[in-house]
Amino acid sequence: MARTAGIVVIGDEILSGKFADENAAFLIRELRQLGVDLRRITVIPDELDDIADTVARFAARFDLVFTSGGVGPTHDDVTIAGIAQGFGVAVHRHPELEAKVRGYWGAALADANLRLADVPEGAELVYGSDPTWPVPAFRNIYILPGVPALFRRKFAAIADRFRAAPITIARVFASADEGVLAPSLDAVVAAFADVKLGSYPRFDEREFKVILTLEGHDAARVSAAWAALVERLGALVVKTEAPAAAG
Amino acid sequence: MARTAGIVVIGDEILSGKFADENAAFLIRELRQLGVDLRRITVIPDELDDIADTVARFAARFDLVFTSGGVGPTHDDVTIAGIAQGFGVAVHRHPELEAKVRGYWGAALADANLRLADVPEGAELVYGSDPTWPVPAFRNIYILPGVPALFRRKFAAIADRFRAAPITIARVFASADEGVLAPSLDAVVAAFADVKLGSYPRFDEREFKVILTLEGHDAARVSAAWAALVERLGALVVKTEAPAAAG
Repeated sequence: MARTAGIVVIGDEILSGKFADENAAFLIRELRQLGVDLRRITVIPDELDDIADTVARFAARFDLVFTSGGVGPTHDDVTIAGIAQGFGVAVHRHPELEAKVRGYWGAALADANLRLADVPEGAELVYGSDPTWPVPAFRNIYILPGVPALFRRKFAAIADRFRAAPITIARVFASADEGVLAPSLDAVVAAFADVKLGSYPRFDEREFKVILTLEGHDAARVSAAWAALVERLGALVVKTEAPAAAG
Repeated sequence: MARTAGIVVIGDEILSGKFADENAAFLIRELRQLGVDLRRITVIPDELDDIADTVARFAARFDLVFTSGGVGPTHDDVTIAGIAQGFGVAVHRHPELEAKVRGYWGAALADANLRLADVPEGAELVYGSDPTWPVPAFRNIYILPGVPALFRRKFAAIADRFRAAPITIARVFASADEGVLAPSLDAVVAAFADVKLGSYPRFDEREFKVILTLEGHDAARVSAAWAALVERLGALVVKTEAPAAAG
């Protein structure tokens, strides 16, 4: 089964260049290995209306949505409120999370920390392989923290539930300009509509001018498209990489 | 004058992890130095309808829009057609670009290369500091190539026209949890609505627990907010960085 996904990165700090994105870059690789088709990444500010609108669109469009950031006890942590607004539900203090927050901070608990127990009403808690702290999921939206070490740990705990049909990829390195290759590529695309053919010119390589990639969930079709492309390009092929699992 | 911007990265190759994004990361830094407020980055597939819809939304919402990728002679280069569709105009072969394409390839010209002379009807050509090859601009959308070396070179040639009021940033490093800091942050946010206050917990530092940033286009207001925050946090301040030009 093919599954689609979208990533919403909530963070002024990324847009302003104060921190480089690590979470989308990490999730690109993880989803690829899981066989999930990532269809969109959007980085937006810490703003309620924008979060509400963006997550509602993503949730309607993709099978899986992952948010990064904007969860925490301070004024700029508005992801939970944004998701709630996007679906017209209230923000709800989850008793199970509240118990965890109180247990974690003990006597040092500040009032603001209790915001970490808030979820959009109707959210479920997904523990995966980590019994200590769950990931809140509202409908098909998995709500992950922005701090990269936490983001990675939490995603790793729940990753297995997203596994889909693996992606197969093959590569062909060609010695001609894209303009020369174009008619051959068009012919392969027409014959193999279910195989994605990418064409990437490179100007800093001596050995080849263009990297061509063929990929899809059906390994046999990727193999057939690869064979057809190699045959069509003939002497323009510098080297090839046979179909293999992506990731 | 404050100016807003959005970046649309068009590229299956980024979403699938075949290549890491370099262009958005580069543009984040450049726009910051120019004083432009980057408000959104979206990475989408090489798909006509998605490009059309996305660029139309961005163009209506931000002062400046930059697209990366999807320009070239092959089947997966559909950015020009996507922008044209988004605004209900035709794709037009620009005579000035066509002359450049023919001059560049000479006798080696493949038919497909002429697609590099196509623009959405009504686009203008922006040369900036590079007389050899212009950047097509349609309304407020600047159309840049996906190959990172070209993207950087072309943006550098036209960057000066985007210069806006510089951004000033100050930093405060605090020794307490975000939950403890939250009430103080709320007070500063309430008093300085025009200064953006960011709060970023870090779990791998010994010296401090949270990095706080204050930034805005009005240096005097950033300074005042910084002084107010430092005073309010008192002994929780480990170190500070005085207001300075961002970038």
